[in-house]
Amino acid sequence: MHYERDNIQRMSGYTPGEQPDAGTVIKLNTNENPWPPSPAVMAALANVPAEALRRYPSPSAAQFLAQAAQHHHLDPSQLVATNGGDELLRLAITTFVPPGQPIGIAEPSYSLYPVLAALHDSPLKAIELDDNWQLPADFAERMNAAGVKLTLVVNPHAPSGQLMRAEKISALAQALDGVLLVDEAYVDFVDPGHDVVSLIHKHDNLLILRTLSKGYSLAGLRLGYGIGCAELITPIAQKTRDSYSVDALADALGAAALADQDTAQQSWQAVRDERTRLTHALRERGFDVISSQSNFCLAYTASQSKQSAAQLYAGLKAQNILVRHFATPRLHNAIRISVGTPAQTDQLLTELDRLLG
Amino acid sequence: MHYERDNIQRMSGYTPGEQPDAGTVIKLNTNENPWPPSPAVMAALANVPAEALRRYPSPSAAQFLAQAAQHHHLDPSQLVATNGGDELLRLAITTFVPPGQPIGIAEPSYSLYPVLAALHDSPLKAIELDDNWQLPADFAERMNAAGVKLTLVVNPHAPSGQLMRAEKISALAQALDGVLLVDEAYVDFVDPGHDVVSLIHKHDNLLILRTLSKGYSLAGLRLGYGIGCAELITPIAQKTRDSYSVDALADALGAAALADQDTAQQSWQAVRDERTRLTHALRERGFDVISSQSNFCLAYTASQSKQSAAQLYAGLKAQNILVRHFATPRLHNAIRISVGTPAQTDQLLTELDRLLG
Repeated sequence: MHYERDNIQRMSGYTPGEQPDAGTVIKLNTNENPWPPSPAVMAALANVPAEALRRYPSPSAAQFLAQAAQHHHLDPSQLVATNGGDELLRLAITTFVPPGQPIGIAEPSYSLYPVLAALHDSPLKAIELDDNWQLPADFAERMNAAGVKLTLVVNPHAPSGQLMRAEKISALAQALDGVLLVDEAYVDFVDPGHDVVSLIHKHDNLLILRTLSKGYSLAGLRLGYGIGCAELITPIAQKTRDSYSVDALADALGAAALADQDTAQQSWQAVRDERTRLTHALRERGFDVISSQSNFCLAYTASQSKQSAAQLYAGLKAQNILVRHFATPRLHNAIRISVGTPAQTDQLLTELDRLLG
Repeated sequence: MHYERDNIQRMSGYTPGEQPDAGTVIKLNTNENPWPPSPAVMAALANVPAEALRRYPSPSAAQFLAQAAQHHHLDPSQLVATNGGDELLRLAITTFVPPGQPIGIAEPSYSLYPVLAALHDSPLKAIELDDNWQLPADFAERMNAAGVKLTLVVNPHAPSGQLMRAEKISALAQALDGVLLVDEAYVDFVDPGHDVVSLIHKHDNLLILRTLSKGYSLAGLRLGYGIGCAELITPIAQKTRDSYSVDALADALGAAALADQDTAQQSWQAVRDERTRLTHALRERGFDVISSQSNFCLAYTASQSKQSAAQLYAGLKAQNILVRHFATPRLHNAIRISVGTPAQTDQLLTELDRLLG
């Protein structure tokens, strides 16, 4: 006898990237920032009193929320702290989509989106990106025609790293009947000058996802947040969010991380520099590499390559270098490589040369 | 224009107990353990490397899960780690209840249950406890007749502190058509000898909730877990649970807490001793106090009391002593007092004497 719901029995769960225990592995598979978190974060950790663990945390993660509001020049009512960005994805679905109604995504994108839709027992309205990884011109029109209540768009796009400019986001929010969630998990690595946050004053259906996992080197802490107009944020913050979903440590450490912009921004620039070097080096080796505005590169194997992408993934793994390979029609000829430190790039390239040599 | 679902617009969110910033408040309102967490937890905290924050955590919280499995003499497949016990409540609903189908509870109980049902757009089948805070004899029969897929029972009961014996839990699991979740948030404070965990080998529909918030003095950390047969746990652990919902710190600190049973058990015995003293002292002052097996006491005001329960709550709060008052028909004449340290009990009693004197 089984007790789970039929839709849950039918579906498959999300497959996270491999998270090996061994510290000897070069981990270029799940897009962590290769640089360590701020010393201010470690100082905040060392100063956590036993009393902060014993007692319930602030229900809203007030310390972090105040710091994030100050950072973005917003009111705390325009933000909500979540247990990683992934919690905000689930909350947006819970808050805005009646079960059974469609959820919109571009395809391909973050492989968690279809899992969350299946959990909610909602059909997926998936619209294929064009050959340049751009949304087709009639994207919003087709979402509206399908009655989509919530559209999830990751920007910069994963796994291509392509950036949709703020003007296009604004036009998309304007055109969509439902809520537009822009998943900015990787936005910190974009070349300076890109800003979508200010658009929340213009569009009452725009919800922005941020996370400290990548930009602030805190994937282990599970801390993200949502940004939107107060009317959009309030039902999430006051109703659908789990009580106390952000713990006392994330509240304190997250605030410390945001307060030290210098350390974070230095890491972003280092990633951009290394992204440029990695892109060129891969192209020199015959890969077709899309110019990325994120902290990863999507590299297609040359048509005459001695090794398929799946073989390269396996060959690198055998040498303790993890990259990501997706066995889907559009991606099976590619490997996605997180941008690492210069030393990690060197080791990756050495190993690729051996495999392709 | 609003974008949230109709059921979410209609409902009210959960109201957490007050969590004041000031360390000067005597906090007897949200059932924290008054004793500090294990020194081993603080040592684990001091040893967290920056690398553990930078990288994604174990998706399953493997270190904690292994420790919990060893503690309960179970296989890790029979447990799932969650972001506080509250996440397990939500996951049980998501996993076992199609939206719109009823969720069963006893009334009164934990005030989060109706909120979670409303979020899921499921009607609540609430059955009133009898005058002795026991389930009526036809409880399971009525749940089955209503088509309830999941019944939530907190044991020891909140807010009365009454314990349902394991034999009755077993009979209830046997009688229910759907899943029985036994919320054991407070079980560590029960007098020794009570065991429900071993019943999972007998009932494939029994899901047990545990938390480190109370028994292990880690409310600030957000760590709970579920126990059940592998078939019941697997869809939660592999499908409905948020990816990486337990962070790297909770994984490490939770394992350290479970490993130090001596510290935890000393705190439980201290709470039991103080519970006895508090109960007697309140009865001496005319309160009708139910004998509690938990870390709180429910105290009804005497009929000739000079102050109503609401007035006592307010009067204590004015003196920086927080207790809980629920403005519901069955509870409005009572205050719920978390068991504190002997010094906190002394201050509470002094203040009560002043208010009632």
